[in-house]
Amino acid sequence: MKGKLFLFPNSISTEGKGSDIIIQEIIPQISLWIIENQKALFRFQRFYNVKIDSEIWKIRENDPNFVYEAMKRIESGSHAGLLAESGLVGVADPGSQLIAAAHVRNIPIIPLPGASAITLALAASGLPGQRFAFWGYIPLKPKQLHPFIKKLEKQSYHDQMTQIIMETPYRTPQTLKLLLQILSPDTLFVAAQNVGSLSPTILRKFVAEWTKKDISHFSQQPTLFLFNACFK
Amino acid sequence: MKGKLFLFPNSISTEGKGSDIIIQEIIPQISLWIIENQKALFRFQRFYNVKIDSEIWKIRENDPNFVYEAMKRIESGSHAGLLAESGLVGVADPGSQLIAAAHVRNIPIIPLPGASAITLALAASGLPGQRFAFWGYIPLKPKQLHPFIKKLEKQSYHDQMTQIIMETPYRTPQTLKLLLQILSPDTLFVAAQNVGSLSPTILRKFVAEWTKKDISHFSQQPTLFLFNACFK
Repeated sequence: MKGKLFLFPNSISTEGKGSDIIIQEIIPQISLWIIENQKALFRFQRFYNVKIDSEIWKIRENDPNFVYEAMKRIESGSHAGLLAESGLVGVADPGSQLIAAAHVRNIPIIPLPGASAITLALAASGLPGQRFAFWGYIPLKPKQLHPFIKKLEKQSYHDQMTQIIMETPYRTPQTLKLLLQILSPDTLFVAAQNVGSLSPTILRKFVAEWTKKDISHFSQQPTLFLFNACFK
Repeated sequence: MKGKLFLFPNSISTEGKGSDIIIQEIIPQISLWIIENQKALFRFQRFYNVKIDSEIWKIRENDPNFVYEAMKRIESGSHAGLLAESGLVGVADPGSQLIAAAHVRNIPIIPLPGASAITLALAASGLPGQRFAFWGYIPLKPKQLHPFIKKLEKQSYHDQMTQIIMETPYRTPQTLKLLLQILSPDTLFVAAQNVGSLSPTILRKFVAEWTKKDISHFSQQPTLFLFNACFK
C-alpha cells in the first residue's frame, strides 16, 4: 500500500504548544521528514515537544531527481512528513512542487490543522473576511509600489475585499510609513505584528488617523498589513 | 485594568484535539463567552475537552446595544472570548463588528492560533500560495456565475494568483460540474472536501482531465474549490 504525504504546520510564535492529534498519532508514523532547514526542525520539535529520529531530507524542489526519489519512497509504503518553516506548507513557502508531484501519482495528501499568520491577522483585524486576497511581498521600488498599492485599494473598493500584504522584518517601519502615504485617508488600515503570540501588536485605524506614535509601536518584526477601502 | 478580547478558533473537523496553550492558560481566564450558537460551543468543548461554566452570550452583532454592553464588560476588566463556529472568527463568519468596536476602544485583541479550512486547502492543493484570493460563496444563478468565474480565471492568469471559492454542502456536486464546464481546459483545478480531518478528499487535475468518476468522489459536504490559470 502507498504511503501518504502529511503536511505538518509549524509554530508561528515561540509561545505555546502544538495540538495533540499530531504528536500522538501521526509523528511516530512518519519515516521520512522533508524539511526546509534545521531551524524549522528545531522549532517544530520544541513546539510539539517531540524528538524526530527518523530520516530527514532537506528539500531541493528544483531538483527533479529529489522529487522523484521522495515520491518513490512514499509509493513504496513510507509515510512522509513535509514540514513548514513557519505556519503552513506552501502558503508563501516552498513545497508546492512536491505536493504537485504527489497529486499526479495519486498519493493521499493530508494537511494537518495548523495556524497561518495570514488568517489570524485577518481575524484580528475585524476587516471583512468574506472576501480577501493575499499578495505576498510587495514591490521594493517606490515607483512600482505606488501603482501596485493604488491598484489593490481600487480593487478592494470595487470587489469589496480585504487586501493583505507582507513585509520582511527589517523594512517594516519604512514600509508602514510609505503605505500610509500612498493609501487614501478614508481607507481602513491594519498593521499586525507577532500574531500567534499572546502579545501581538495590532492596530486598526483609518489611514488619516494613524499617528507617528502609532507607527512607532511597530519594530523590525514580521508584519502583515491589511486594508479595506469599503468603509468610506 | 482593561480586559482583553481573545479570539478562539474552533475545530474544523470532528477528529483531533486542540492545542495546549489555549486550554491550560486562557480558557479559565475568560469570564464572558460570546458565541454564535450552542452547537459551536458543544463542538469547542468536545474538541478542547473542557467545560465552559462562565457567562455565555449569544452574539447579536447588528444590535449596537449588544456590542456596547460587551465592550463595557471588557473595559471593566473582564477577559472575553469570542468563539468561532468553525475555524477562525471573522474569516467568512460573524464577529467583525465586535472586533471593530474593540479596536476603537483600544481593547487588546488576541487571535489564538487555529486552523482555517481555506489555508489548509491551499496548502494541500500545491497551487502557488504566494498570492491567493478567497471569494467566499459564489453567485447562485448560472447567468451570474459564468462571468464571475471567467473574471476570476482571467485575473488568476494576469496577477498570477490562486483563486479560492466556497460552496454550501448540498450544492457541491452540481457546482463542481458547472465549474468544470466554465473554466478553460488548461486551468489547474482542485476540489477539497473535509480538510482538517485525517481523511480529506482532495483532487487536483487540469480541468480537461477531470472525469465523471473524479466528480463522483465529492458528496454533499463543505467544499473548497481552488484554481490557477498560470500553468498553461
